[in-house]
Order: sequence, then C-alpha cells, then structure tokens
Amino acid sequence: MKPNFTVLKQQLAEIADLKAAAAVLEWDQQTFLPPGAEKGRARQIAALCRHLHRAASAPELGRTIDALEKQPPAPDTVEFALLRAARRHYDRCTRVPETLAEDLSATTAEAYADWLRAREEHDFRILAPRLEKIIELKRQYAALFAPEERLYDALLDDYEPGQTTAELDVVFAELRSRLPGLIDAVIAAQQSGPDFSDRAFPAAAQMAFSRDLVTAMGFDFQHGRLDLTEHPFTTDFGLDDVRITTHIDERDFLSCILSCVHECGHALYSLGIEPELNRTPLADGASLGFHESQSRLWENQVARSAAFWRAFLPHLHRYFPGQLADVSESDFLAAINRVRRSEIRIESDEVTYNCHILLRYDIEKELIHGRVRCADLPELWNEKMREYLHITPVDDTRGVLQDVHWPTGGFGYFPTYTIGNLLAAQLWELVHRELPGLDDRIAAGELQPLREWLRERVHRHGARYLPGELRQRLFGDARLQAGPFLRYLTARYLPEA
Amino acid sequence: MKPNFTVLKQQLAEIADLKAAAAVLEWDQQTFLPPGAEKGRARQIAALCRHLHRAASAPELGRTIDALEKQPPAPDTVEFALLRAARRHYDRCTRVPETLAEDLSATTAEAYADWLRAREEHDFRILAPRLEKIIELKRQYAALFAPEERLYDALLDDYEPGQTTAELDVVFAELRSRLPGLIDAVIAAQQSGPDFSDRAFPAAAQMAFSRDLVTAMGFDFQHGRLDLTEHPFTTDFGLDDVRITTHIDERDFLSCILSCVHECGHALYSLGIEPELNRTPLADGASLGFHESQSRLWENQVARSAAFWRAFLPHLHRYFPGQLADVSESDFLAAINRVRRSEIRIESDEVTYNCHILLRYDIEKELIHGRVRCADLPELWNEKMREYLHITPVDDTRGVLQDVHWPTGGFGYFPTYTIGNLLAAQLWELVHRELPGLDDRIAAGELQPLREWLRERVHRHGARYLPGELRQRLFGDARLQAGPFLRYLTARYLPEA
Repeated sequence: MKPNFTVLKQQLAEIADLKAAAAVLEWDQQTFLPPGAEKGRARQIAALCRHLHRAASAPELGRTIDALEKQPPAPDTVEFALLRAARRHYDRCTRVPETLAEDLSATTAEAYADWLRAREEHDFRILAPRLEKIIELKRQYAALFAPEERLYDALLDDYEPGQTTAELDVVFAELRSRLPGLIDAVIAAQQSGPDFSDRAFPAAAQMAFSRDLVTAMGFDFQHGRLDLTEHPFTTDFGLDDVRITTHIDERDFLSCILSCVHECGHALYSLGIEPELNRTPLADGASLGFHESQSRLWENQVARSAAFWRAFLPHLHRYFPGQLADVSESDFLAAINRVRRSEIRIESDEVTYNCHILLRYDIEKELIHGRVRCADLPELWNEKMREYLHITPVDDTRGVLQDVHWPTGGFGYFPTYTIGNLLAAQLWELVHRELPGLDDRIAAGELQPLREWLRERVHRHGARYLPGELRQRLFGDARLQAGPFLRYLTARYLPEA
Repeated sequence: MKPNFTVLKQQLAEIADLKAAAAVLEWDQQTFLPPGAEKGRARQIAALCRHLHRAASAPELGRTIDALEKQPPAPDTVEFALLRAARRHYDRCTRVPETLAEDLSATTAEAYADWLRAREEHDFRILAPRLEKIIELKRQYAALFAPEERLYDALLDDYEPGQTTAELDVVFAELRSRLPGLIDAVIAAQQSGPDFSDRAFPAAAQMAFSRDLVTAMGFDFQHGRLDLTEHPFTTDFGLDDVRITTHIDERDFLSCILSCVHECGHALYSLGIEPELNRTPLADGASLGFHESQSRLWENQVARSAAFWRAFLPHLHRYFPGQLADVSESDFLAAINRVRRSEIRIESDEVTYNCHILLRYDIEKELIHGRVRCADLPELWNEKMREYLHITPVDDTRGVLQDVHWPTGGFGYFPTYTIGNLLAAQLWELVHRELPGLDDRIAAGELQPLREWLRERVHRHGARYLPGELRQRLFGDARLQAGPFLRYLTARYLPEA
C-alpha cells in the first residue's frame, strides 16, 4: 500500500470510529436509556453527528482523494474499491448544501411528530403538508446527483449503489404479473395449522431458545450481544462488536424467534467481512438489498423450512413441553408458513410481502417525479391495496400511515426489501447447486456449511463490490432476477403444482 | 443573562455533550462490551477524546472567556462561577503542551500494563522505571501551574480546587496523632459478630434488595440505572442520566449492599444539582472530596448505623430468611461495623481507612518533591504500614502495588478520600443540629429528610462554589476539620468512653 493510502485509511478510520461512537449512543438509547434521559441523549447524538459530518467533509480528506485519483489503482484491488467508496461518501457529504441538509433534518423531525399524531387520530391530512415539503426537499437533494428524468435513481442509489429505476421496472413488472395469481393458488391450497395465540410462552424460555438458535447459526457472543428492544435491529460498532436485538410477546413466540434469526442473518454479514476492511467504508454490506438478502435467507429460506425444524423442533419442544405437547412437525410447519393477505406490510408472510413493496414503489416514483400530489395519497394507496391484495384498509393508520419511512425521508428505501427477497432466492438456488445435500446438513442441525458458503461468497467482500458487480461474480449476470424467487415460492408453497 | 454568556453556554454545552458521549462509551465498556471488542472500543474512545480536546481548547472559546472577563459579573452570581470554571478548565486544557499530554498518556498506558504484570509477579521492580518517568512528567505538568516548592499543590488542585498542602498537613497531623490510639481502643472494646462468609446469598435477591435500598434513598430510575460491573462506579451523561453499578459476591452480600449505598450517595449528588447548571462545567460536585463526602456519609454514617438497620433489617430478613434466621439486630450491627487492621485499603473499615491515606499522602508528597526515589518505595511503604497499622504486607502486590492510582498518574487523588470522610462527619454533625430527631426518621425508614437537606445545602449548588467557599457557607469556616470525624468515630465505636 502506497503511503498516500495510509493517510486515506487514517482519515477514514477517524470517521468510522466516530460513526461507531454515535451508533453506541443510539444502541443504548434503544436498549437501556432511562425514560427521562431522551432529550439529553438526542443532544449528545446531535453533537457527535456534527463532529462526524465535519470529519467526513474535511477538505484534507477531499485533497487526499483527489491526489490518489490522479494515479488510480488497478480496478481489481482493494485500494480501487476503497478510493471509489471514499469518493462516493465524500461527494454525498459535501455536495449537499448545509441549508438543504438542515431543512431536511428539521422537516423530517417535525414530520415524524406529525406522523405519530396522524396515526393516533387516524387522519393522513395531519401529515400531508409536511410530507409534501419533504418530497420537494428530496427532489432538490436528488437533483444534485441526477437529471430531472432520473431523480428517483439518485434516491435509490443512496441505498443500492448503481441501481436504476429502468432495471427495477422490468423485474417488478414480472412480480406484478405473477404474484397475484400465485397468492390465490397458495391460499386455496394451504392446510390449516394451529394458532398458538391462546398459549403463553414465557419470556425467559423464548430468549434462551433464541440464544441457542443464533449460536447454532454462528453468532459470536465474543463479538456481539443479543438484547431486547421495542423494534428488533442490528447495529455494529466496527467489525468486532455486532449487536442484535429482539422483542418478546408471550402470546407470539414465533415473532421473537424469527426476529432473532433475521437479525442474526444481518449480523453474520458484518461478522464475516474481512478484518482488513474494518474502519473503512467497505466494512459494510454491498447494499441494503444485499444485507436484506442475508436476513431474509436465514429467516425465510432456512428458518421456515422443514429441514430446519427437523433439527430444531425437538429442542423447541424441550423449552415448551406443555405449550407444544399437541403440535406435530407438520402442524408447526403449517403454522410458521401460513399465508394470508394483510393490510400491514410488517405482518405479511413471504408470499404476499412483495405486493406491499410494489405498491409503495409505484407510488413513491410518482411522488418524486411530481406526478401525484400528497393529498391524493390515501385514495391511491387504498386503490392499489385493492388491486394487489383485494383489501381496503380500515383507516389511514392501517393504510398509508403504517410505515415511518416516508415521514423520515426514506424514499427509495422500500425496493431494497424486495431486492433482498430476490437475491435470497437466487443465492438459495446457487448454494444448493454448489453444496449438494445442504438440506440434509440443515436437517441435522449443521448450519455452518451454509454460513461458511455465505461468508466465502458474499460476506467477506463487504462493500468492496457494487451490487451489480457482486451479482456478476456470484451469478454470472449483473441483472436482478425474479425467476428464482418465483420458483422458490412455487416449490415451497405449491409442491404439488 | 447577557448575549455573550449565551455564546459561552453554547460552547460549553458542546463540550459537555461530547464528554457525556465519551462517558456512554466508557460505561458500555464496563457493563456490556463483548470481550472481543476491547481494542475497537479503545480506539473509539480515543477518537472521541481527540474531538473533545479540540472543542475544549478551541481558540473561539478562549476569546469568549477573555471578552467576558473584561466585564466580570458580580461575585455571587451563577455567571461569575461559570466564567471562573470555564477559565479554569480552559487553562488546564490549553496550558499543557501537546507533547507532554501525549507523553503522559502513552506512559500511563504502558505503566498500567507494567502494573498488571508486576502484580502478577509480585515484584514492584517491574513497575519502577515507568513509575519514575510518570513522576517526572507529573512534576513537569505541575510546574505549569505552580512554583517548585508548591508542585504538589498543583496536583491536589486538579481534584480539590484551592486545596493546599499546608492546610492538609495540619489536619492530617491531627489524624496521625489521634487515629492509632483510637484504633487500639476500638479493637480492644469491640464485640464479636457473626461471619456470613459460610452462607450463600443468591445474586438476584442481593440485587433486588439493593434496588429497594437505593429507591428508598431516592435514586430516580427515571433518570438512572443500576447495573453490574467488576468494580462499582457512578457516571453521568448529563444531569438527566446518572448511572450506578455494583458487584455481587454470593459469599459477601454486605459488599454489594454497601457499594450500592455508596454509589447511590454519589448519584444523589448529581441528580440533585440545579437543572439550570446542566451541560456546563458547574454540573459536577464541588470537588472529589465533596463527592466522596456524599457517598461516605450514606455508606458509613447512615448505612452502618443502628437507626438504619432498625428500618431495613426486617426487609433484609424477608429476602434472606434462611441465611439470616439466627442473626439478631445487634449481631448484624457488630458484623457490619467490625474493625480490623488490613493491609488492603479498599478492604478497610472506616476506623482504620484513613491510615492508608496518611501513608500514601506522606509518600506521594515526597515523590513529587523529588525527596524519595521510586526504587525505595516498597521499603518505605512497608515501614509506614508498620508505623500506622502494625502490619507488614506479605508481598508488593498486597503492599505498594495494590492501587491503580499511581501507575495511571493519579497523584494528589488519595487525600480526597480522607477529605470526604472528614466532610461527611462534619455534615453529619450539622444535619443533626438542624434536623433534630433525624435518627428517629431514619429508624422509621424515612430517608427523604436527610436527602432533601443534603440537596438543599450541598447538591443543588453543583460546582458553583469552590470547596472552601462551600465549607464557609455550610459551617461558617472554610478550613478542613478533623474534630467532627474523630468525635463521630468515638461516639459510634466507643460509646462507653
């Protein structure tokens, strides 16, 4: 490594360390903060973020990047990827005028309060004016990075580097044409399973079983923790401290278990990144979509499969002998794979889930390109719900107000969930080709062949490759594919077809 | 408040917020950090401290202070105290050359490693060379703030603003002449009490009782937490988030209980400071000695008293009905007030404790003034141990190597423990004069009269007054006093005398 790269790595390490510090404060805020300390904590995070922003947009960093770009490293080196990422982050950080950044931050903070109130009063109109303003600000933001006709691309790119609307349109069209029929068929064919909501599953046993599960998946408690929060999440403070959280509902034990598996899927990604990338912008997933592919693959492809529960159901029975006494393996699988249309995205199963994303994608593209007005959102939302899922939400709270993403400015985020689902299925096909007999290993409780394969093929690279480049390496084709996902759903839910 | 003070408060708030952020990272390091994340955390704290130092020594802050000092506020205003504290902190921060600060920080880090190894190998010589260097660096540091003949004053002043060696010499001489005889008499007179170390006190019950105790003391879980660490401590992230920790040994339940009371004493100080002082350098105790007076008053004067256990022993019996079945109130009091000479400071009772401090005070003054060489420390230590406590430590680990203070550069710190003990006794006399019947209230389990008195007389002022000023306000005399402490020990331990 040339001396100049040593300087760049030092400058980037400083930024990474401050970012980690901010993440510690946020983690503590979610897990252990005393209720009366919210205001103080918000100010501490804000102070830290000001210093982080200053470091990330420091002119010296810009000069280091400029100098290195004059003699660019070879395209297949880590240095090349590092310099590219440094440039990307630096530009995102410096190109946005301070007034716009402040305006966005203040407006989203206000909109978040509006959103809470709108949900309470079941009335979207409370949120509409500030949401309108956010959209205008996001358009201004996007215009810094893309021409008018590709504004939405610029927003996608924040979460999914290089992703275009044109490519998404193609693959989402395939889902749009195939999913509704598939949902009909699955619902018609499915067998009824038990409902556990009349039984109490003690919190301590849920937590103990969940710890066993993530340990079996390979979660490393030497470099991580599992704690409780209202909403489960994964965070990291560098690659040697990756923490996951879950939530517990004594009437819904599947939720805790599947959350743990999901978050552990994210955590294994971070824990599997090459240590040499630590404290650089490459110590991250290739994209949100790739990150979500890891959580979803473990949650859906693995932890809803017959093979997985062949291994772990006996163990679960030991923790809940009374509650599950009358539950057979096939009962349990029917329950964990139940498909039903819901008006709520986060309560949806893997068959109907992507319809919720298609709907949001349709709408947010229109909003960002100024072809739909905020005031018309509830009507448009409900129309699309009827079209995709034959459901009319009972009110705005269970309709257009259900997600926090838009009020907090997260336009372009939703598609990454579906990208994650598609990638998970594509990886699942690939790993079965490369590791014949994988299901038998899983059925024997051996999860390390899958984990090691994911580490070798995906995790260790971190953000070294752009999502398209990584797909090219993995699948020999950079394009997103809907086929593997549709085949996976069909195979799992319509095995007789 | 004049506009200039608004600017000063903003600049100080930024520093306070970053300091709080660093404290969060340190708290997490002690409580919940995964074992493999130590290195990363150290780097994050270092990065944060660099930004903190930059903010605390920013030229703009210096200019604000200079400008305000040209038209100083009236001496009895908060602004006066704020400006004085800002000047004090700014000078401490900017007057130390960067090379000296870095040299100190690197040498103490190395010395800490040496200290651990020296303890393991029971050999002071492993630590001696780096300790010698630390003393030389501390002399250079002190010389920035005081002339040669008052170097030790400059070190004292870091912890105990305005404290002079001359004043300490007087009051410590009184202790030196009175304590050894008192110890002899107490040991001769004391009755034997039960030893609980053959009984197991389950951790969960210890924790539950401790939570009850700190709640009764007035610890506010809306603005604080109680967690487990190897070494108990109190920290705060601003005045709305004050956290204490304790440790649990199933064979030594008194240790957990008394630690909780001690740390809660510190916490009540922080929680009692006027909210308007939050995010300023005045949101702190008047000095380490005053802080320690609060923890010690609750731990010793209160939680070793007959009145306190009249209220709380029945409650303790409910948590440990079997373990304490045969233990009467007088048995229990004898056990919790047992006096015996120990070679270890932190295992000492309140009667012998200050002898350990006198010894360290004698030695560190000589070290800083260059009148004793490091190589001679073990011999000098053991000689003084025999003189004060008639004990010869079995080896260096239980002798001169027992404390972490010197290897980490904490010269001038030890006396604050004794200052705390003296102040606690002086406050204890005062509160009994001002609140007649206090012991009866305590015996009824009512701790809020004492807490509210301490808040009104001590806590709410934070660091607004220098320790001498606060003593003048409280006692009508700024000088430290040994009398109340000696009277207190005599009354409690030699009631017949």
